[in-house]
Amino acid sequence: MDFLDVIRELKTRNDSKLVMLIADGIGGLPCEPGGPTELEAARTPNLDRLARQGVLGMMIPIKPGITPGSGPGHLGLFGLDPLKYVIGRGVLEATGIGFQVGPNDVAVRCNFVTLDADRTIKDRRAGRIPTSESAPLAVRLRQVQIPGVEIFVEPVQEHRFAVIFRAEGLGDHVNDTDPQKTGVPPLEPVGEDPASQRTAEIARKFIAQAEKLLAHEPKANGLTLRGFSKKPVLPTYEETYGLRAAAIAVYPMYKGLAALVGMEVVGQPKTLEEEIDVLARVWNDYDFFFVHFKYTDSRGEDGNFAEKVRMIEQFDAIVPRVESLRPTVLVVTGDHSTPAALGSHSWHPVPVLLWAATARPDACQAFGESEALRGGLGQFEAIYLMPLMLAHAGRLAKFGA
Amino acid sequence: MDFLDVIRELKTRNDSKLVMLIADGIGGLPCEPGGPTELEAARTPNLDRLARQGVLGMMIPIKPGITPGSGPGHLGLFGLDPLKYVIGRGVLEATGIGFQVGPNDVAVRCNFVTLDADRTIKDRRAGRIPTSESAPLAVRLRQVQIPGVEIFVEPVQEHRFAVIFRAEGLGDHVNDTDPQKTGVPPLEPVGEDPASQRTAEIARKFIAQAEKLLAHEPKANGLTLRGFSKKPVLPTYEETYGLRAAAIAVYPMYKGLAALVGMEVVGQPKTLEEEIDVLARVWNDYDFFFVHFKYTDSRGEDGNFAEKVRMIEQFDAIVPRVESLRPTVLVVTGDHSTPAALGSHSWHPVPVLLWAATARPDACQAFGESEALRGGLGQFEAIYLMPLMLAHAGRLAKFGA
Repeated sequence: MDFLDVIRELKTRNDSKLVMLIADGIGGLPCEPGGPTELEAARTPNLDRLARQGVLGMMIPIKPGITPGSGPGHLGLFGLDPLKYVIGRGVLEATGIGFQVGPNDVAVRCNFVTLDADRTIKDRRAGRIPTSESAPLAVRLRQVQIPGVEIFVEPVQEHRFAVIFRAEGLGDHVNDTDPQKTGVPPLEPVGEDPASQRTAEIARKFIAQAEKLLAHEPKANGLTLRGFSKKPVLPTYEETYGLRAAAIAVYPMYKGLAALVGMEVVGQPKTLEEEIDVLARVWNDYDFFFVHFKYTDSRGEDGNFAEKVRMIEQFDAIVPRVESLRPTVLVVTGDHSTPAALGSHSWHPVPVLLWAATARPDACQAFGESEALRGGLGQFEAIYLMPLMLAHAGRLAKFGA
Repeated sequence: MDFLDVIRELKTRNDSKLVMLIADGIGGLPCEPGGPTELEAARTPNLDRLARQGVLGMMIPIKPGITPGSGPGHLGLFGLDPLKYVIGRGVLEATGIGFQVGPNDVAVRCNFVTLDADRTIKDRRAGRIPTSESAPLAVRLRQVQIPGVEIFVEPVQEHRFAVIFRAEGLGDHVNDTDPQKTGVPPLEPVGEDPASQRTAEIARKFIAQAEKLLAHEPKANGLTLRGFSKKPVLPTYEETYGLRAAAIAVYPMYKGLAALVGMEVVGQPKTLEEEIDVLARVWNDYDFFFVHFKYTDSRGEDGNFAEKVRMIEQFDAIVPRVESLRPTVLVVTGDHSTPAALGSHSWHPVPVLLWAATARPDACQAFGESEALRGGLGQFEAIYLMPLMLAHAGRLAKFGA
């Protein structure tokens, strides 16, 4: 029996309110031997108080040693096994810029490249062309016309842009055209099955017209296509957990990921304070609230320990506002670690705080990596976070008599 | 390779004696913030001494967040994945009242219901009819006669009773006839395959005759049938672990569950003291002993913290008698937590104590949830308890050369 099927069968409904507060990349590392991590260095009186009242643990985002991207990291938080449910790269790219991929869409990640006169690739990233130059070129490609297909071209960043082909019955089993080296021409797109051959044919036409439109560009006179993918069919919060779920985020990527599992994206907050305003406003309309804070990850990626500490302190400051709404279960964690010392996502387990009246308290006195290591939840895989939240909210019936 | 196949292959025999002392529902919660759990509040000098000598851990009965019923809870203790091996509801109900379900039986849970004149259900539980009134009605249904089928009707409690149809080749893929609402008639039993269609036909006849026998009852003039199920084929202790296993329990449910995995149910003890008398008496005849103590769970279900504490102290008091038999491996744990604060089974991990000369001691000083959290066994799923016991008894060979 699939574990999600068990959850589906056991789910019950009640009036409880569940909040998942995500500080992206919150887990970290000391920046000097024997020193504290970012979370331990931060002054977090509110989270520490909740840690004393609730229960802590260490969450393994996917499997030990595996560093998650944002897609798999969030699938795990949402209770979906990231090794089983895969969001295609094209869909993730489109989602990241706020494009709502529909059921008839095939989304593709594209790179501008520099082609030589013989059409071999000279630079796979078009000389790292700045966004200010590349974005107008992506917009120019909206002139491409292919009968029977609706085409969307969306700038992303630097040499990257996204293309979405919309037509009924398109397949997404099409190879990447990036040959992963220079001195050779881009590969031809080839479809593995009839539906994907149609997509490949459309892609070939798109490339031909695009190269004409870019012919006189000094850097970005060609393109490669990667990660052809359709919108994945994922279990939804309503169907799986019986939860009316709201997603509150500033960045399109996280809104998009939440939408893929059936959450309703609410509000247009621009700051963390505004996110909590939205939370308070929609409190009566949903059972579950995913609230995403980005900047802990951003400053970790920057390699800026002090600024990540400051972001964690900003995050701590809004906690009382969340508490004042009186959630039944409040979870604080991240989708992965982003240690400033590494300047990137990492595989290190992520500290988790679960507060609920039904939690079995442990000896933890503060919210941080060392404390979480001796927490009552132990070390567990992210896919069990949702079952734990549901259990603590009285939303899972007994398994078997 | 299935994990149990590995165990089967590695099992070896020797003269060791293994004892699994189960205090049902032993895990708990504090009844006030910052307070001890039931196990921590109880005075348990014997268990604490064993905890200092042995090794502790926290056991997850099924998966994080999942609250087990008694069936799945015990399957886990017995080393069988409760998500893979399922005991049907009808079999569990029959087992719970001491009926030994045989290979040609289909067991069914039944409810007395109140039917209106038009045969629609007015009350799905026959006005919560007391057992004193319902038991004679169940006995009356023993008058039902269907050629070629042996029928057993057994009272259970209040509106509940059990029916067992015995005939060769009966299937158990028959729907529940409880429509889960009032104002409609009971559903017709329908079989999914030819063997189950035969069972459904028998069930229809049983219902027709039963309704005649109950026609003049004011409350219990109808019935619904649920959980049609045959005896599951489960791996046995002898075949899987190479253990001659004895089960010592007061309640029929636990005797029945143990019998399903091939344990021999020994003695007719009525108290914990008598259970240990039986244990001593049969000590030389078996390798493994499952001893079940019920009342820790019962008082937890009652929501009575103080009484659960007292039951744990009674349980502690018999430990020296078990030790005096000189077991090779002695495990003390429960099949799940039953916190008095919740008054029900729960998903919280269960403290485990493993005493053996081969155990690697840890720093734990007493048997309780907080101590177990820092125990040497860590947090582990129940299905690994049997392999751990076998290993500590020298009964598992090296895996691979």
